[in-house]
Amino acid sequence: MIVVLTGGTGGAKFVQGLRQIVPPQQVAYIVNTGDDLRWWGLHVSPDVDSILYALAGRLSRERGWGVEADTFECLEIMRQLGQPSWFQLGDRDLATHLLRTQLLSEGSTLAKANADIARRFGIESQVLVMSNERVETRVQTPSAELSFQEYFVRERYAVEVRGVRFDGAEQAKPAPGVIESIMAAEKIILAPSNPVTSIGPILAVPGIRQALQQTPAAIAAISPIIGEAAVSGPAAALMKTQGWPVSIVGIAQAYRDFLDLLVCDIEDADRQHDVEQLGIAVSCTRTLMRSDADKQALARATLEATESAAVTAT
Amino acid sequence: MIVVLTGGTGGAKFVQGLRQIVPPQQVAYIVNTGDDLRWWGLHVSPDVDSILYALAGRLSRERGWGVEADTFECLEIMRQLGQPSWFQLGDRDLATHLLRTQLLSEGSTLAKANADIARRFGIESQVLVMSNERVETRVQTPSAELSFQEYFVRERYAVEVRGVRFDGAEQAKPAPGVIESIMAAEKIILAPSNPVTSIGPILAVPGIRQALQQTPAAIAAISPIIGEAAVSGPAAALMKTQGWPVSIVGIAQAYRDFLDLLVCDIEDADRQHDVEQLGIAVSCTRTLMRSDADKQALARATLEATESAAVTAT
Repeated sequence: MIVVLTGGTGGAKFVQGLRQIVPPQQVAYIVNTGDDLRWWGLHVSPDVDSILYALAGRLSRERGWGVEADTFECLEIMRQLGQPSWFQLGDRDLATHLLRTQLLSEGSTLAKANADIARRFGIESQVLVMSNERVETRVQTPSAELSFQEYFVRERYAVEVRGVRFDGAEQAKPAPGVIESIMAAEKIILAPSNPVTSIGPILAVPGIRQALQQTPAAIAAISPIIGEAAVSGPAAALMKTQGWPVSIVGIAQAYRDFLDLLVCDIEDADRQHDVEQLGIAVSCTRTLMRSDADKQALARATLEATESAAVTAT
Repeated sequence: MIVVLTGGTGGAKFVQGLRQIVPPQQVAYIVNTGDDLRWWGLHVSPDVDSILYALAGRLSRERGWGVEADTFECLEIMRQLGQPSWFQLGDRDLATHLLRTQLLSEGSTLAKANADIARRFGIESQVLVMSNERVETRVQTPSAELSFQEYFVRERYAVEVRGVRFDGAEQAKPAPGVIESIMAAEKIILAPSNPVTSIGPILAVPGIRQALQQTPAAIAAISPIIGEAAVSGPAAALMKTQGWPVSIVGIAQAYRDFLDLLVCDIEDADRQHDVEQLGIAVSCTRTLMRSDADKQALARATLEATESAAVTAT
């Protein structure tokens, strides 16, 4: 069994590759819900939705989020009616949020609602949320504290970040199946997601980090950083707030208490030794995912390197 | 001031004509909410929506309901996800229901929510709901009691009707402004709507029928029946359950305790005398509304005939 921790667009791209090469029943995904928001009265789980759409083969390749070939008629009317429109929900995408909101209002947990939606999309992998409780990523800027989507989408991460906190994390519990799947896994992969706001909220749920430290599984992370920059998004600015260098060394530091293997880009081969000094194995490969072939190749290289790491560890 | 009682597609067509010939500030609409339903977790008010769209110039001319040139992407995904799809919400249409549901969940009354939406659509007429309380039209068939939309849309009114009741009507109060506008009006027009399930729920709200009996305004109704059949929809079958003949005489009987004038089709000139015997004036004109010109002509003829009826009554 393979367990993948994921969030953000990098994570979704990796999932698009992995699903092509591994039978779906052999993978469980533990997904960040720190970005969840209430939008137009609906419960939107951006990272869960990306994984659902990726696994259903419906993720927009053009945008990297939302549904392939979606339209935005409702959004345009909302804008005309004076409602906020900076967070773009497509018309097809709306079905997911409407259904999730309805299931939640009928008493379903977030985990059950998403499992139900996954089943309706014909998804055979397990899609787990990190927690049924509200854990909200809050981004501290000089002028205000923002939700992640306010920071990422509305402000296009063009504001200074002073810190990040995960509101509600201390009281949250891992969703059913999260700890169990981590403990029972053979391989655990941290997708090439932002370590602060995509993987960070998952690790902030009490019990999950401890399970990663204790599991017998081989744990690999794919670096979302190449050289000294993020492949996409605000990872660099966010890593600085944690005191981590913006490089594969920073990624290794973020996960050093449980990581066995770091998969990094061939461009970072010269930094390999700095990571190995932290007691973490390194495997270099091409990590940029532009085509379907890139995505599959990265998933395959990651699985093979994790296999070797597991053998070495044994 | 003109007050219009309306519901259904016939009512919306009449409103499309009236808005072309009368300044919007001079008209208040009292709209049926007996057809309201919860759909995909949203509060949908089909008759209010038709009036909002008609007044905003956005009502689909092709369908007679919903928004002009709307798309149905969300509906198609809902269908794929196994959700009920017989009630067709368009993508543009969804914005109205999302906004209404959100306003209601924030504590707004139905009247305030709809007034807010009307304002955002740039509508200058008053759009009043009959009541802020839930009044639900229930259609009794041999096998089950159905909501109006289940009967009308899902079953396409192809089932036998044994009776109609308005659940909650006894406890309902007229919405703010309803009684006041009826008492202050110069002219009151009952749109060519089904008298049982479009106008009937309005009249079932305690106080509204009494206000119509007491108001000094001239009250006219436009017959939705020509000859012995409804222009559209299930009015004929529904009128039979009330013991009313399916003709302009039946319409006159439905409203005889407050009606001054019945506007009927020229085809019904030979039945004019039967209505006049009930003490109700009759004006014959073309009532079929196929084109924009038809709609305006009917609105104009109705206003002129009501003017004459008011003078005669004085």
